Amino acid sequence: MGLVIPFEEATGSGDLAKLVSLVHGDMGKVNETIMARTDSRVAMIPEVANHLIESGGKRLRPMMTLATAGLCGYPGQGHVKLAASVEFMHTATLLHDDVVDDSDMRRGKLAARMLWGNEASVLVGDFLLGQAFRMMVEVGSIPCLDVLSTAATVIAEGEVMQLAAAKDTTTTEDDYIAVIRAKTAALFAAACEVGPIIAGRPKAEIAACRAYGTNLGIAFQLIDDALDYGGSSQKLGKNTGDDFREGKITLPVVLSFRRGPESERAFWRKCLEDGRIDDGDLERAIGHVRKHRAIEDTIERARHYGAMARDALGLFPSSEWKDALLDVVEFCIERAH
Amino acid sequence: MGLVIPFEEATGSGDLAKLVSLVHGDMGKVNETIMARTDSRVAMIPEVANHLIESGGKRLRPMMTLATAGLCGYPGQGHVKLAASVEFMHTATLLHDDVVDDSDMRRGKLAARMLWGNEASVLVGDFLLGQAFRMMVEVGSIPCLDVLSTAATVIAEGEVMQLAAAKDTTTTEDDYIAVIRAKTAALFAAACEVGPIIAGRPKAEIAACRAYGTNLGIAFQLIDDALDYGGSSQKLGKNTGDDFREGKITLPVVLSFRRGPESERAFWRKCLEDGRIDDGDLERAIGHVRKHRAIEDTIERARHYGAMARDALGLFPSSEWKDALLDVVEFCIERAH
Repeated sequence: MGLVIPFEEATGSGDLAKLVSLVHGDMGKVNETIMARTDSRVAMIPEVANHLIESGGKRLRPMMTLATAGLCGYPGQGHVKLAASVEFMHTATLLHDDVVDDSDMRRGKLAARMLWGNEASVLVGDFLLGQAFRMMVEVGSIPCLDVLSTAATVIAEGEVMQLAAAKDTTTTEDDYIAVIRAKTAALFAAACEVGPIIAGRPKAEIAACRAYGTNLGIAFQLIDDALDYGGSSQKLGKNTGDDFREGKITLPVVLSFRRGPESERAFWRKCLEDGRIDDGDLERAIGHVRKHRAIEDTIERARHYGAMARDALGLFPSSEWKDALLDVVEFCIERAH
Repeated sequence: MGLVIPFEEATGSGDLAKLVSLVHGDMGKVNETIMARTDSRVAMIPEVANHLIESGGKRLRPMMTLATAGLCGYPGQGHVKLAASVEFMHTATLLHDDVVDDSDMRRGKLAARMLWGNEASVLVGDFLLGQAFRMMVEVGSIPCLDVLSTAATVIAEGEVMQLAAAKDTTTTEDDYIAVIRAKTAALFAAACEVGPIIAGRPKAEIAACRAYGTNLGIAFQLIDDALDYGGSSQKLGKNTGDDFREGKITLPVVLSFRRGPESERAFWRKCLEDGRIDDGDLERAIGHVRKHRAIEDTIERARHYGAMARDALGLFPSSEWKDALLDVVEFCIERAH
């Protein structure tokens, strides 16, 4: 039952130092809650859950809940369980995603489904989702329950949307943004919205934190998708080219497909629609993406959403918490370099 | 968006006539709610959800919520959304179970995963679970949210327990009862408990309805497991022998394994632990089960839990509702004949 961590941030690699130091005490409590709530008399549950939970994810989403509660001067303890709920919702999504995507790796380790099977990944995900709701119920705020249960629905909707759009090279940039708004940004938004809600802040501040979270989440996912065509496996904790192999149509592909000649489009269709990927095709895909500056422009789009996230916090007076939240935007975008 | 039904009950096949007639009006509202809440801008979601929802399940669980609310004289409308939540939780479990069990059939139709893939079954299940929680949140009763979110966790725990016990012929009757108490009875219990809670009834009545639901659920699952070694495919809407082929250790097996000679135990181990099932093995298994009167005794055990369910309602005065709920116990057990 030791503490979890190793945060990337805690090792001093980025701009999250301010945030990490501000939430340090509360994150200790969140981590204890996470450990306690993955426990079960059924031994396979903590085994599967902790395999993923202890694999060094950043815990960015629960930190957002703690930080927005801090920004709003919340004096209580409810934010700890809400933050743990948010992390459980995220972990449940990852377990189910690995099954949906047939992924072998997650955060640089074998995916849980490779070790315990798809069955365990589906069911332990369900268990964690149940525990997430139990913790929210214990906090007892109906508005927070509303925000987080709606997010759970929207995330699943986004995943199905992505499934329907997969292998479809006619996907537009708008379609793509709609998918990541649902599958990624909805949880960031909810994580940030429950902070001011639990603190009893007025509507305008709740809306501001939600907007911050939504736009941060979109920027975060855009950078993730850019890295899949340019980052290193180690940095992302997943394999470069995963999206390509799974036929996912992300923004680097949407842009390259539109900017290239018909011969390149035929190549994308063969790989992503027909699923026929030959030796050297990933390198060829990366070559096309680079040639059309699709990575740079994906990062540029991320900056746009990052700017909206920053501006959303404009109505809050200066504070350490606000500075820390602004740093998160930088961190998410600078990961690309 | 037509209404759903065909209930087995509505065609007059059993003892549920009293219940069906009492809840008729409210079940219309539950069915409308179900249809409205499976809708989504993502077309695949209502397609997958309705494939299963329209396949003529009995809707026994939501009827339990309506009936226990009726028993307790609840005058409001909150029970409709709670009942729809219960059915969504059940539907989500079925979608995930089909993936976990690699099932081809469900309720006499192809399982959703055979038509839309495992991915869609996992994600649409997640969507329905999210919608279930949203509806509970709309009702706004924290104690009901507590009961139903706890049930969601316990169900997942029970499924993992079953996964760990699968293929293990050393499973005892107690182990088996612990599994079905969690994976099946927990939802029946919660469905029955939220009725008196929403009606604001005292603790003793809440506990009584919960006990009724728990014991009814255990009896229901025992009969289901008996039918798997003796019923017809049509009656159950699944294939006789599914449990056998999936290596599930249910009570008919637990009893037969203990009552037979070593040669039969070797047979059970070969089939269930090693998964080597040859032509004629299902017939041989059914033969063993019959010879040892394991079906009769499984039904006998179900009667025991059924008696406890009936007695749990003893503190309620006579009423149409009470009679209807007592009939449900008979119905669940008489299915076996």
